[in-house]
Amino acid sequence: MAIGEFDLIRQYFSNLQAIRPGVVIGIGDDAAVLEFPPNRQLVVATDTLVAGVHFPKKLGAEHIGARALLVNLSDLAAMGAEPLWFTLALTLPQASASWLSAFSKGLSDVATAYSCALVGGDTTCGPLTITITVHGAVPPGEALTRRGAQPGDRVYVTGTPGLGAAGLACLQGELEVDDERVRRQLLDGFLKPRPRLDVGQRLRGVASAAIDISDGLLADLGHICEQSQVGAQLEWEALPNLDRLMDTVTAEQRRQWVLGGGDDYELCFTAPENKSAAVQALAAEIGAPITRIGRIVSTAVTSKVLCQDKHGKKVSVHKQGYQHF
Amino acid sequence: MAIGEFDLIRQYFSNLQAIRPGVVIGIGDDAAVLEFPPNRQLVVATDTLVAGVHFPKKLGAEHIGARALLVNLSDLAAMGAEPLWFTLALTLPQASASWLSAFSKGLSDVATAYSCALVGGDTTCGPLTITITVHGAVPPGEALTRRGAQPGDRVYVTGTPGLGAAGLACLQGELEVDDERVRRQLLDGFLKPRPRLDVGQRLRGVASAAIDISDGLLADLGHICEQSQVGAQLEWEALPNLDRLMDTVTAEQRRQWVLGGGDDYELCFTAPENKSAAVQALAAEIGAPITRIGRIVSTAVTSKVLCQDKHGKKVSVHKQGYQHF
Repeated sequence: MAIGEFDLIRQYFSNLQAIRPGVVIGIGDDAAVLEFPPNRQLVVATDTLVAGVHFPKKLGAEHIGARALLVNLSDLAAMGAEPLWFTLALTLPQASASWLSAFSKGLSDVATAYSCALVGGDTTCGPLTITITVHGAVPPGEALTRRGAQPGDRVYVTGTPGLGAAGLACLQGELEVDDERVRRQLLDGFLKPRPRLDVGQRLRGVASAAIDISDGLLADLGHICEQSQVGAQLEWEALPNLDRLMDTVTAEQRRQWVLGGGDDYELCFTAPENKSAAVQALAAEIGAPITRIGRIVSTAVTSKVLCQDKHGKKVSVHKQGYQHF
Repeated sequence: MAIGEFDLIRQYFSNLQAIRPGVVIGIGDDAAVLEFPPNRQLVVATDTLVAGVHFPKKLGAEHIGARALLVNLSDLAAMGAEPLWFTLALTLPQASASWLSAFSKGLSDVATAYSCALVGGDTTCGPLTITITVHGAVPPGEALTRRGAQPGDRVYVTGTPGLGAAGLACLQGELEVDDERVRRQLLDGFLKPRPRLDVGQRLRGVASAAIDISDGLLADLGHICEQSQVGAQLEWEALPNLDRLMDTVTAEQRRQWVLGGGDDYELCFTAPENKSAAVQALAAEIGAPITRIGRIVSTAVTSKVLCQDKHGKKVSVHKQGYQHF
């Protein structure tokens, strides 16, 4: 197959730039020119997915396309930002029309759902790797960060951490689930993570710190603790439970998924005690599952993230966080 | 070696965010938060370098780091934009301290020279691939594009197209040059391309269209012609000549490098006849080599880029443009 990069980009991706206004010059020039909204700060995140590292090599192209944008939008959610535009750097071993068609379909669905327009990119030949850089906006000074957690703050999580990791196990044949509805829910947990953009934007002025769970709950809450110079205590029983799997999976495996699973893209955030009602109200308003799972403590108590069960026994995991090397 | 991505990024790249003000939140959170200057349009470009495709696998890490940013800055130059910030997505087979140290040195030198701050990134494990997304600014409506060339406009080029390709041949042992000074100049043409940011910014209001030469002069001027719906006629003798190589290289090889060489990152631009004095003046003021090499014609004459010698004979190349697949 011998079609050039320009044809590739035009053919499959040119319809993705009309999703949002403000694109003065989009795909097809040396760079994009964009009308950045006044009185906003620019928020920029970039995430790379490598085949065989960040997703199974045989994953369908539509899922890869969707996931590549979703994981980036999740970073904007964790900052409380509104998505605007993204660029796509796509490295491919060969140019297959059917693969590109499915990939751009998955990408397009997510871009449309979250009003994020493709404004430029680069297509190169090499091992399958996708880097997306996403651009968003926040009102000045209102971005959520990892730095603001204070002792006494409550710790919250959206959705059900561990669902993505269990879904991946399902996909790879390591977990068998007879109930087709449960199986679909688990698979969707991995294949269709939902960036919590609505939650993130509503948390501005409410949350004291936030992060998205990409490396596992303990590891990512650990980043908040490190940058806020605090510790955290979680109650195991308070965590959303993967109980639908209880019958077929060991308790150790469940702990691993819930505390160490890295594919959820849910938000973990902290908020002062006096914002508890505000958190509950926004959860109800958006219809988002938000669970209080613990509290922030001073480093005099611990500088780590400790999880205990109701008997005071430490709940730990074998593998914490995702180490790329 | 088992150091995590967070340590990697912190250790080698954290000093690169202080280069420019406006970084509210830089490396180490889910996303960067940036003060975008008022009354400017945002300019965004992204370019990927794959080892063995865009540079020789054995190229020194310092050169790879420098090149990865330079080629992106060259896109901003072609838009007439001022650089602000960049993100780095680095995929590495393994984390070697010496490689990372040299890579970040090369990157740092370029970032400092052109006042472009690193504000975020992602480090992943896989075959060596570098994607940089660069952010710049232009006054509203003043970006240079590929669309504005008109019949009668003159065609210009900066520097000496072909130098990069000849330098690569030198580096790979395909070209032997005895004169060490000439050899160094050729190697620098490939290893240290200069993004023509000063020229690009001065061309606002002067040039009718612009592009940077990354795929070869004929191919890239062809993009201007296609998007402006015009043709172009070049005079072979007017082109900056790689005459220092005349003795050892066939005429065919020189033509190939000059017209089809893809590693120069010089600018090719068009300007109306009545801006000729302005072009000469800015060249003299900046001290930039700018050469008039031909003219734009209507598609009634040709819709392609034709190059002829003084006898009216067509000068063509074997390979036009870089096809990734």
